[in-house]
Amino acid sequence: MVKIRVLGIDPGLRNMGWGIIDVEGPRLSHVANGVIHSAGPDLAARLLALHEGLSGVVAQYRPRTAAVEQTFVNKDGAGTLKLGQARGIAMLVPAQAGLPVGEYAPNKVKKTVVGVGHAEKQQVLHMVKLQLPGVVIDSPDAADALAIAICHAHHGGAAGLAAAVERAIA
Amino acid sequence: MVKIRVLGIDPGLRNMGWGIIDVEGPRLSHVANGVIHSAGPDLAARLLALHEGLSGVVAQYRPRTAAVEQTFVNKDGAGTLKLGQARGIAMLVPAQAGLPVGEYAPNKVKKTVVGVGHAEKQQVLHMVKLQLPGVVIDSPDAADALAIAICHAHHGGAAGLAAAVERAIA
Repeated sequence: MVKIRVLGIDPGLRNMGWGIIDVEGPRLSHVANGVIHSAGPDLAARLLALHEGLSGVVAQYRPRTAAVEQTFVNKDGAGTLKLGQARGIAMLVPAQAGLPVGEYAPNKVKKTVVGVGHAEKQQVLHMVKLQLPGVVIDSPDAADALAIAICHAHHGGAAGLAAAVERAIA
Repeated sequence: MVKIRVLGIDPGLRNMGWGIIDVEGPRLSHVANGVIHSAGPDLAARLLALHEGLSGVVAQYRPRTAAVEQTFVNKDGAGTLKLGQARGIAMLVPAQAGLPVGEYAPNKVKKTVVGVGHAEKQQVLHMVKLQLPGVVIDSPDAADALAIAICHAHHGGAAGLAAAVERAIA
């Protein structure tokens, strides 16, 4: 059975979580996870740091497909705009590497990983650890990113992911 | 006197306007303008098209400084998010080329170019044409981008822009 490497991204302007898993049929295994912290004197520098950090992750681990959390659109326009800018980078980097990029709403991610759409962060972390034995996670943003990768694995399915990757590279 | 080439960007997900002017002391001259239309089956493909198009503009015209319009945050969260994603790309591309990237609110751009903060699009177009003799503009997005470049020229001033560029490349 084909092994598909999946990148999950939890977009954020200050902290962008990422998680990499391998999917082989029904079997999931953890590869790596982390958080890219943006720094810099202005917005452009922060976006550049996110782009460089995430490009480095893609170059190092060479995932074949990616998924990004659909941002929750709230009443805080300025916050939504900031998140949108970070999310633009999160979508761009895998697309630049030729990967198909899936999108999942936060509720769908939680429902897939925990079983309910309104799970607490601690429940998500607990279920991510159960499904990826031996994983060590330092940050809630990285846990969310791994949950997104797991969601992508379940909904694409390994066969579906393999087909999507084959279409993308055909 | 140093001649500084300025890139102005009017960010949008479907249509991203760009305009290039040369600034030499008080003298402004038009170099080029246009619109990048994003296309593609999904958001990632659109963002990739914007990144490639704008990177092409930077590579072709080699501006030394850039300015992007500050997005108007409205009550439409989904619209703000889309614009934010496009704006992330608009800020990233000049930053990747090592350019300083300025930001100006729409009212500041209009006040600088037209003299009032709430000018109509037609007024902006008229004043851009007056200040850049011989310019041909096919799109309102490109006109807005040229207005942003003019605003950057006036507020940075040629000396200020030259100093900013020298700081950036030092």
